[in-house]
Amino acid sequence: MTLDAVLARIDETLPQSLDRLMELLRIPSISTDPAYKADCARAADWLAADLASLGFQARAAATPGHPMVVGHGGEGARHILFYGHYDVQPVDPLSLWDRDPFDPQVQDTPKGKVIRARGSSDDKGQLMTFLEACRAWKAVHGTLPGKLTIFLEGEEESGSPSLIPFLEAHRDELSCDLALICDTGLHESTVPAITTMLRGLTKCELTVHAANRDLHSGMYGGLARNPIHVLTRILGRLHDDQGRVTIPGFYDRVDELPDQIRQQWQSLAFDHAAYLGDVGLSVPAGEQDRTPLERIWSRPTAEVNGIWGGYTGAGFKTVLPAEAHAKISFRLVSRQDPDDIATRFKSWFEAQLPPDCTVDWHGGNEGSPASVMAIDDPAFEAARQALTEEWSRTAAYIGSGGSIPVAGYFKSILGMDAMLIGFGRDDDNIHSPNEKYDVESFHKGIRSWARILARIA
Amino acid sequence: MTLDAVLARIDETLPQSLDRLMELLRIPSISTDPAYKADCARAADWLAADLASLGFQARAAATPGHPMVVGHGGEGARHILFYGHYDVQPVDPLSLWDRDPFDPQVQDTPKGKVIRARGSSDDKGQLMTFLEACRAWKAVHGTLPGKLTIFLEGEEESGSPSLIPFLEAHRDELSCDLALICDTGLHESTVPAITTMLRGLTKCELTVHAANRDLHSGMYGGLARNPIHVLTRILGRLHDDQGRVTIPGFYDRVDELPDQIRQQWQSLAFDHAAYLGDVGLSVPAGEQDRTPLERIWSRPTAEVNGIWGGYTGAGFKTVLPAEAHAKISFRLVSRQDPDDIATRFKSWFEAQLPPDCTVDWHGGNEGSPASVMAIDDPAFEAARQALTEEWSRTAAYIGSGGSIPVAGYFKSILGMDAMLIGFGRDDDNIHSPNEKYDVESFHKGIRSWARILARIA
Repeated sequence: MTLDAVLARIDETLPQSLDRLMELLRIPSISTDPAYKADCARAADWLAADLASLGFQARAAATPGHPMVVGHGGEGARHILFYGHYDVQPVDPLSLWDRDPFDPQVQDTPKGKVIRARGSSDDKGQLMTFLEACRAWKAVHGTLPGKLTIFLEGEEESGSPSLIPFLEAHRDELSCDLALICDTGLHESTVPAITTMLRGLTKCELTVHAANRDLHSGMYGGLARNPIHVLTRILGRLHDDQGRVTIPGFYDRVDELPDQIRQQWQSLAFDHAAYLGDVGLSVPAGEQDRTPLERIWSRPTAEVNGIWGGYTGAGFKTVLPAEAHAKISFRLVSRQDPDDIATRFKSWFEAQLPPDCTVDWHGGNEGSPASVMAIDDPAFEAARQALTEEWSRTAAYIGSGGSIPVAGYFKSILGMDAMLIGFGRDDDNIHSPNEKYDVESFHKGIRSWARILARIA
Repeated sequence: MTLDAVLARIDETLPQSLDRLMELLRIPSISTDPAYKADCARAADWLAADLASLGFQARAAATPGHPMVVGHGGEGARHILFYGHYDVQPVDPLSLWDRDPFDPQVQDTPKGKVIRARGSSDDKGQLMTFLEACRAWKAVHGTLPGKLTIFLEGEEESGSPSLIPFLEAHRDELSCDLALICDTGLHESTVPAITTMLRGLTKCELTVHAANRDLHSGMYGGLARNPIHVLTRILGRLHDDQGRVTIPGFYDRVDELPDQIRQQWQSLAFDHAAYLGDVGLSVPAGEQDRTPLERIWSRPTAEVNGIWGGYTGAGFKTVLPAEAHAKISFRLVSRQDPDDIATRFKSWFEAQLPPDCTVDWHGGNEGSPASVMAIDDPAFEAARQALTEEWSRTAAYIGSGGSIPVAGYFKSILGMDAMLIGFGRDDDNIHSPNEKYDVESFHKGIRSWARILARIA
């Protein structure tokens, strides 16, 4: 059987695959630091050349920032886009690294062999799993495994300033039937997983004004409005005793989980005690009638991220301040609309303002809706089966409490859903000193893509 | 009648009294700035010499800071201490002054003649009203008007670091039957007044801890405890819908106003609309079933003076912080005990902490109880009648929302009540550029003391 031949080829050529990854890891493509601009370009050129060697029509396309690597190749019924990013995080503090972050090395550890280098897990090691799968396929079959577009970004770690303009300018070239994104991890470091739900986000910043200047609490205390009291009183009512957000209509567009997803999540047996214990907590907060996984993956939140007002320095000043401030953000799910939620919050807040108080709202609205992938596309179930075979563990559909903006842009700009599949682990130290990627993640990652592509492309 | 002779003498010698005040005002005795240390000493020496010229046994007593001026003289049934302070506030910004702050001048204004100089109202002009009254009395009678101890501080504007040790070290020398303090003003700039109630103060600073580090609101939002929510929820309940403080037992030791005081305050017809309007407010906050004057003079308060937590810089960070902070102070009245109130607040706060949260309390307890003068001492009513005669307006017993620490120390260390009588006006610009003292305040102030001393000494 031909897939077996591809998998055998992957196993045989693993040393060469690792050598190529090492070559890429040696390029310090730190996108946020202008000192490494030439290195980012070098990494892009290296990847474009590697894609060309696989038969892709490839280029490093210039942007106002770092280049985008784009390659097209292969034939197939379903046009698939693969996304990864070749830029990496800065390495400071360098003193906490065991070795030069850009001198990669395979090391033996008690848990197995790891590739130690900046970018090994985030995201060079991950993106190379896909390219190596293509390479093995090409070696066995003489062709690429399907109709593929490769799209590798060089600004993911620095806010992706060129991403939206580039997607908009290359809408026709980049719009495919489905996107594959390799920038996530195994669930709890062990369970192969496809992320199908990502929460959205909207933000509000406000200032409550009362008196026209700071007042002495002796002269005015008990008679003048204290805006800190106004702020705490209103924000203190943001959740009810059951942890539900009290803003009217907040849950109107929140859907219940599909049964299939609910059952999968139950089967994950999420260890919330360990998850919370890791950060010094033990009791789940939030909506009391929801499971811990629902609370972080499929339920919306309202969180005060910052609050300040009055005197906050050393010692004491018995002041009634003229104003008080807060930053509030909302994680969104299902069909919640960022603007609608922000508007509902503002109305709810303003309706509770006492006399003599006004509120100013700051900052533009930069909200993004939740991403909910259409798992009725048979490609999802096919990919899940492929992962299950490779890892000898039932692969799961999981959620992500945070946002992965590129998935949202693929949907909103290019009109395609994304399958987020990755092989990182919780202890990979991404963004930190001593980043690593397990050789097993790399090896089985390559094999996973070969199996997935065999089924869906 | 001899009082008439004294009053006539005061009127005749007003120019000389003003000249002496000018001399004192020319000494830049800024206590907080070490550059003026010699000037503070010079002001103390000037006052000690002036007291000696009146027949007081007087000295400028050294302290680790600026000297205390102490004088003893006269005979009488009741031993009376008079307090004022000879130090002044800094003068910056100098550019906002119309003239050199230490080159005093009597100026004509639409509202009458004023003495323009730093310290003219706070407190050199005020303390000199008492000395000039003694001088006129001495000129007419050949003796001082009673058994007097003069006590003039030189550190009032810089936190009075030497005051408590000095009072404790000179307890026997300074303990009298009654203190007179001249460092306050006419009520609403027009009504002669004796301040008989001063609110006390106690403070708490706290940190609420939740997770052992800042968390990402995508990964943990909805499941992990947000200490800002804990803080706003608890502090948002500090007052009920009627503005009452909800801490159990908070009002246990709060007395209702004596009828005499209540009637007086009603007759003051306090213009709370103007008082609040001046700072941009219009609706009295606080206890809804209390009059505005009660709320600032005779009712206790709980005020959050500062709050902070999470990300407070520009832009946004979707963080669930590990901790959140607040500074809370309480204005105390009647028999409320500072330690007891702080303890009740802490218990109330801690009882509402949810799981996984702890609270740290910072700072020592520096509370002071309220001062409530025993107005059944006939001296109070006598002084009130004296003031009523001089100003041709019914003098009032008033309260003060703030603390005047020296009054509390006189009570706690020396065991004596104080009568706070002063002649400042709201537009005197104390602590600000262009400080002034009305010549009428100075002149009628001197006459007021002569009338008061005639009745009580």
